[in-house]
Amino acid sequence: MAYTLQQLSDIEDIKLLKHRYFRGMDTANWDLLNSLFADDVTVDFRGGGYRVTFTGRENYMTFLKNSFHSDAVAMHYGSMPEITLTGDDEAEGYWYLYDIFIQADTRSQTTGTALYKDRYRRIGGEWKIVTTEYDRLIEFVGPMDASTQVTVQYLATRGLKPEERQDIRHLISFDASHG
Amino acid sequence: MAYTLQQLSDIEDIKLLKHRYFRGMDTANWDLLNSLFADDVTVDFRGGGYRVTFTGRENYMTFLKNSFHSDAVAMHYGSMPEITLTGDDEAEGYWYLYDIFIQADTRSQTTGTALYKDRYRRIGGEWKIVTTEYDRLIEFVGPMDASTQVTVQYLATRGLKPEERQDIRHLISFDASHG
Amino acid sequence: MAYTLQQLSDIEDIKLLKHRYFRGMDTANWDLLNSLFADDVTVDFRGGGYRVTFTGRENYMTFLKNSFHSDAVAMHYGSMPEITLTGDDEAEGYWYLYDIFIQADTRSQTTGTALYKDRYRRIGGEWKIVTTEYDRLIEFVGPMDASTQVTVQYLATRGLKPEERQDIRHLISFDASHG
Repeated sequence: MAYTLQQLSDIEDIKLLKHRYFRGMDTANWDLLNSLFADDVTVDFRGGGYRVTFTGRENYMTFLKNSFHSDAVAMHYGSMPEITLTGDDEAEGYWYLYDIFIQADTRSQTTGTALYKDRYRRIGGEWKIVTTEYDRLIEFVGPMDASTQVTVQYLATRGLKPEERQDIRHLISFDASHG
Repeated sequence: MAYTLQQLSDIEDIKLLKHRYFRGMDTANWDLLNSLFADDVTVDFRGGGYRVTFTGRENYMTFLKNSFHSDAVAMHYGSMPEITLTGDDEAEGYWYLYDIFIQADTRSQTTGTALYKDRYRRIGGEWKIVTTEYDRLIEFVGPMDASTQVTVQYLATRGLKPEERQDIRHLISFDASHG
Repeated sequence: MAYTLQQLSDIEDIKLLKHRYFRGMDTANWDLLNSLFADDVTVDFRGGGYRVTFTGRENYMTFLKNSFHSDAVAMHYGSMPEITLTGDDEAEGYWYLYDIFIQADTRSQTTGTALYKDRYRRIGGEWKIVTTEYDRLIEFVGPMDASTQVTVQYLATRGLKPEERQDIRHLISFDASHG
């Protein structure tokens, strides 16, 4: 059994879509990110002590801009794709995430992994993310080692400054029971 | 020179096979894992201070269930595949692993990388792992930082509880000289 | 829209090229690395406090051999490829790097990520790296935790010994302003 050329092309394009998502997040490339989501995208991220749930591309962009701001030191490393085509213009995918997030001002560090389950749809000829959710597999939270210095922080000059940020607490619920 | 459609399909399917392996391990998905190995699979993992060697799918499942148990905080991040088709139904592959393993009760942490060399065979229409081995490239062992808290541990409720575990010391030899 | 079989084959081969690059570096496989670059390859790596710039495969090999020497504990984990074919024998690619570098003698540790932008060319039937550059996204520098032991260091016996090393300061400029 073999895939068709169209199927292999679609699998490659869906991988590109998600690679752009992680690159866009860690480089504050909002135009790139805005092109990746369906208008009615739904999100459900279940972390340790937080749960992020909302609908719509505009909410997604607000969430991303206000999470990966000028005080964020962020790595989102997503790989190990398992893409399944479920129709001519529909697909599903697992991705495995390894992420580091340091709040530069407080030096609080969160390190973890998560398993994404996404659905994709071809809309106007382009693959878009239509639903995305994850469950955390492991997560640690603690202070960054006192003698370690942050020597590069790409988002410092590109992320939203404190006075530019919006409150996004309506998109997140904080509760130790999510962990 | 180009690959055939069948060859590109096989390469994609072998990548899926190994992605499922790493996902299965970190989520205690024993049914998934059990479907990935040839009956006579052979294993040889050469780590720092340990060497794991055995034959057979049943031993492999025993090893996995008793390594990624309810006290394990585990990440197995495998990527950078180099798949070579060596016959119509045979292939080889390199994979690069980055892994974190924390023993939740003792807070001992092992972090490392390894280079896998695998052989795959199509059996009954499905690609299976027939031999897998790795050499560690780097490895560190130490206590987890005292002020860092584990906030998510997926295996805690899904891995084998202490009273369910089997002794697997016959599958592993411990010797500082393997490092 | 679909890729051709040749295009999908080229994308796979370019992924292999870069996977070999990272594997070669962390295993001191100089023959493998030497086969991956165009003769007139150009390099520009912009890190925190350092910038590496030069031209030519010979300089590249000198740089690699003298960076990943017998005192280096090194991980170069590159993934999330975004390969764009720009001609029959030309391509570009983004790659996301996560790397750890520990100087074993001083126990100084650098951890970071970088976004690579490469250009590739098919030369004599083989894809080669013709330009490679990166910008650091995040970087931390600090001492390795005192109670953590390095238990495997693959490069210790394979990397260049102190007396075999060459001075490579002409290939690197050190300046806090690059961060």
